[in-house]
Amino acid sequence: MSYQAPVKDMLFNIQHLAGLETLTQQIPAFADFGLDTAGAVLEECAKLTQDVIAPLNWEGDKNPSFWKDGQVTTTPGFKEAFRAYAEGGWQGLQHPTDFGGQGAPKTIAAACNEMLQAANMSFALCPLLTDGAVEALLTAGSPEQQATFIPPLLEGRWTGTMNLTEPQAGSDLALVRTRAEPQPDGTYKIFGTKIFITYGEHDMAENIVHLVLARVVGAPEGVKGISLFIVPKFLVNADGSLGARNDAHCVSIEHKMGIKASPTAVLQFGDHGGAIGQLIGEENRGLEYMFIMMNAARYGVGVQGIGIADRAYQKAVAYAKDRVQSRPVDGSKPGSATIIHHPDVRRMLMTMRALTEGCRAMASTAAAAFDAAHHHPDADARKQNQAFYDFMVPLVKGYSTEMSLEVTSLGVQVHGGMGFIEETGAAQYYRDAKILTIYEGTTAIQANDLVGRKTARDGGQLARGIAGQIEVTEGQLAQRDSAAARAVLKALRAAREDFLAAVDYIAGSAKANPNAAYAGSVPYLMLAGNLVAGWQLARALIVAEDALATDKPFMQAKIATARFYAEHILPRTGALRSAIVDGADSVTELSLEAF
Amino acid sequence: MSYQAPVKDMLFNIQHLAGLETLTQQIPAFADFGLDTAGAVLEECAKLTQDVIAPLNWEGDKNPSFWKDGQVTTTPGFKEAFRAYAEGGWQGLQHPTDFGGQGAPKTIAAACNEMLQAANMSFALCPLLTDGAVEALLTAGSPEQQATFIPPLLEGRWTGTMNLTEPQAGSDLALVRTRAEPQPDGTYKIFGTKIFITYGEHDMAENIVHLVLARVVGAPEGVKGISLFIVPKFLVNADGSLGARNDAHCVSIEHKMGIKASPTAVLQFGDHGGAIGQLIGEENRGLEYMFIMMNAARYGVGVQGIGIADRAYQKAVAYAKDRVQSRPVDGSKPGSATIIHHPDVRRMLMTMRALTEGCRAMASTAAAAFDAAHHHPDADARKQNQAFYDFMVPLVKGYSTEMSLEVTSLGVQVHGGMGFIEETGAAQYYRDAKILTIYEGTTAIQANDLVGRKTARDGGQLARGIAGQIEVTEGQLAQRDSAAARAVLKALRAAREDFLAAVDYIAGSAKANPNAAYAGSVPYLMLAGNLVAGWQLARALIVAEDALATDKPFMQAKIATARFYAEHILPRTGALRSAIVDGADSVTELSLEAF
Repeated sequence: MSYQAPVKDMLFNIQHLAGLETLTQQIPAFADFGLDTAGAVLEECAKLTQDVIAPLNWEGDKNPSFWKDGQVTTTPGFKEAFRAYAEGGWQGLQHPTDFGGQGAPKTIAAACNEMLQAANMSFALCPLLTDGAVEALLTAGSPEQQATFIPPLLEGRWTGTMNLTEPQAGSDLALVRTRAEPQPDGTYKIFGTKIFITYGEHDMAENIVHLVLARVVGAPEGVKGISLFIVPKFLVNADGSLGARNDAHCVSIEHKMGIKASPTAVLQFGDHGGAIGQLIGEENRGLEYMFIMMNAARYGVGVQGIGIADRAYQKAVAYAKDRVQSRPVDGSKPGSATIIHHPDVRRMLMTMRALTEGCRAMASTAAAAFDAAHHHPDADARKQNQAFYDFMVPLVKGYSTEMSLEVTSLGVQVHGGMGFIEETGAAQYYRDAKILTIYEGTTAIQANDLVGRKTARDGGQLARGIAGQIEVTEGQLAQRDSAAARAVLKALRAAREDFLAAVDYIAGSAKANPNAAYAGSVPYLMLAGNLVAGWQLARALIVAEDALATDKPFMQAKIATARFYAEHILPRTGALRSAIVDGADSVTELSLEAF
Repeated sequence: MSYQAPVKDMLFNIQHLAGLETLTQQIPAFADFGLDTAGAVLEECAKLTQDVIAPLNWEGDKNPSFWKDGQVTTTPGFKEAFRAYAEGGWQGLQHPTDFGGQGAPKTIAAACNEMLQAANMSFALCPLLTDGAVEALLTAGSPEQQATFIPPLLEGRWTGTMNLTEPQAGSDLALVRTRAEPQPDGTYKIFGTKIFITYGEHDMAENIVHLVLARVVGAPEGVKGISLFIVPKFLVNADGSLGARNDAHCVSIEHKMGIKASPTAVLQFGDHGGAIGQLIGEENRGLEYMFIMMNAARYGVGVQGIGIADRAYQKAVAYAKDRVQSRPVDGSKPGSATIIHHPDVRRMLMTMRALTEGCRAMASTAAAAFDAAHHHPDADARKQNQAFYDFMVPLVKGYSTEMSLEVTSLGVQVHGGMGFIEETGAAQYYRDAKILTIYEGTTAIQANDLVGRKTARDGGQLARGIAGQIEVTEGQLAQRDSAAARAVLKALRAAREDFLAAVDYIAGSAKANPNAAYAGSVPYLMLAGNLVAGWQLARALIVAEDALATDKPFMQAKIATARFYAEHILPRTGALRSAIVDGADSVTELSLEAF
């Protein structure tokens, strides 16, 4: 089997770190989603992703989507797999029952998404983008728009896209030029070129619902003049049936380093008279709506990082258990051994495992905060959870994807020379992963968000509050005797202190010396992500020590992994602290001419 | 221009860090290779690499070498470029004048090699492998073999290969099975399959001199029964003309993630009666000879890492100076600015620059030690320099290539979404670089060498001696007033202390608990490489402060880069120390079944 969904680890997180039972008790809408249901859902998802979707991953790399005469043909098998995905009701898993969804908590749905991403990232981008479109419609669409567009999206008959980027407008959406001209019938005509549109054209669904950022003629300049439009590939009649082909055409797709099966489209709107669009919400509030959708997508991209890291890890483990090469350094075997016996191979595998499990634990906890933020009956609880979730999004996105680069690189490395040969498959993960630190906002964009909106704006209060929660975990560790708990406590405390020093520096300098604060933005994100992932593994260790008797091999592995993370990964915060606190000047010291 | 050779930085290193003038004074054979000559050679090499070889790099990725009916056709233009390279006498640059070489010191030749690698790594592998073959022949070949094979290799009429790997024998050469049967005429018949043979077949030269590891029938098992053979593609007549086609055939080439223009051959020896080979040196000493050649090649691969890192840096700088996106965080411009104005872009570029310059400085110093080790009139000086060089080889190979992964990844990142599009070219460096941590011995193999032969064997004495030299530099820094010198001193001292702690741990545990020592082998290599590169930049800072008046912009840039390295890169040694000293147990704690 090329992919084995980590159902047990996911359920451990959902139960013990995310606290699903508390959620289901406190939130009536989730009453049916207890642990048994979670287990059943995850097992079902594991089957689909392992048996149907994962086997198509390498096929997609060999036979990418291709463009001809405005049409995109996806990899053989994708269409059928998407049908199976849709018919299983998976597209609606986390969406409201009102529109045909299943209303599951994100705490469960995020785990399913990880499986899907691990199985086949190129394929899984289509559902991910559709989720984003649904979120945007739920947030700002009219009841009529919601009724028209959401059900077919959840049924998988249609899919969704996000149209933000233009050649001159990437991270900087203020530069968007796509134009919207109001028509007498209340619609708008859309003119412009959008690039990097994931699944902007394909053959897996009947219709594609493009959500497009554009400027209404006469709107203010900059980000305050951007509106959001629904521009379907085929216009939709009043009865929901498909009408005329809209003037939105795919003129080419990109030739990319990875995720080759996912068509990245250049879309031309309005070359034949104007594409017909409907405004979502109010004019000039498009960026606001888009950010809601982007926040969902950013979390999802973080989960992609975790998924692909796990896939790379599993492949590396399989190879390391099979490949025979060299004698063990401790002389424990007379002849050559499988390479998993060699300490450095073990170190690489443990690094891959610890980073993956750490980020998975972080993402699971964040998902629970999202659920509470949206559905908790108590307003204060909603607010606190929302703040926590907002802080977590850049970490889940930024740290999980950056770590996926390290993990997929180690995955190639474990394979030695074979890793560099495409047919082995390890290289694909390395190539695929590199997009994750870029799209839906680069790591620097996440870091700017973390520094500006999430840390400096409240003077570091929220960040220090999270450090306070970590200190509570330290207190629990301090009451334990085990060597593992002591080791984790030592590293966690040091990392938290590094974090607090960074928070003080960032909060203190963001206004007075923004260049200095932002020079440390990515190191700060990496520090915070590392700390939070390590913290969640520390919590996991406490649970595992107490539950040792229930499943000894699993709990022992969790303890060993948490300890490895603490001893090998957490100490990296020291260098990041130095870079942030001592190194700001040297970032900008070199004159522009000297580069 | 797609590549600008860093001639100035190279000459700075050659003059001030490698001490070329001292070398040329002390070593009569190098008397003609003073700074003026070095400058002239580097300028000439810059022209060739910039104008002729660099423009073919992307072409090689688009139109890789291809195999048909046993023949390999290289990328259009490669043949002509190789002719230009050969006719310029570059293949003989560092080899003895006795055989038609130019007898230049490695201190100069290594800089030329960096240019070649930066210009086109796929192309440059052919000369690099030929260098290795020449080294092996110089070391162990008979006078007749040397006279027959070396001149045409230096003229570029023939090229060389290293045939080590077999499907079951990669890092572990004890498993080599290729068989050599002695013939009555003193030759051997060779039978077996070799894989991963770089430029094992191509159309750029008249003949290919394969150096092949094989077992003479009846030889001892393991590494002590391996001999080295010359197996030319075409047999060579007594007068040096080419004779019959030998029974050594390329049956396929690999489909790789990167360095696609470099044909990686599967060679079949002896399928049609036996390939005719000549023994080099004595039977069963093949591995010893091969190691000499590998040490040269390992240094060369480290230089490949530096070259590709510089290329990625230059491309990223050009993009960052051109791409306009977003307002500066400090409000210094009212509208959007080129992205080099954004602190995190600057941090990425400085990281790329500092890592590249640090490793270049390290490699330059190591090259000087090589020259002194081979040619110094004083035996003690030769011995000391050899010991220093031996310690440096795994660092140059391991650290420079690992850093090239980070640098080429940042290179993609600076380009944002465009970086993921193949036509941009940044992705090629990312894909190409990944082979560097694998071939000629993975990073773990380098690290085992560093731990076993270079550190533990003498109880850490040599390593501590190097730390002592670093302390001398610290003393020099301590006598300076500048903020930069103080910052560098602080970081260098801390990193040296981390190194000493690691040395004590490694030297102390290598025998008693080899699993513990080797669990930290790669972290130890990364720590040592980081420290030595930072040390060389510290030395560079001292020179630059004193020479500020001679070339202010260059010297200021050197100071800024050294300081950045000290504040952002050197502090990473802390986490590595923790991993080595505290983290050994957790590397191997997880049971094999739990993976």
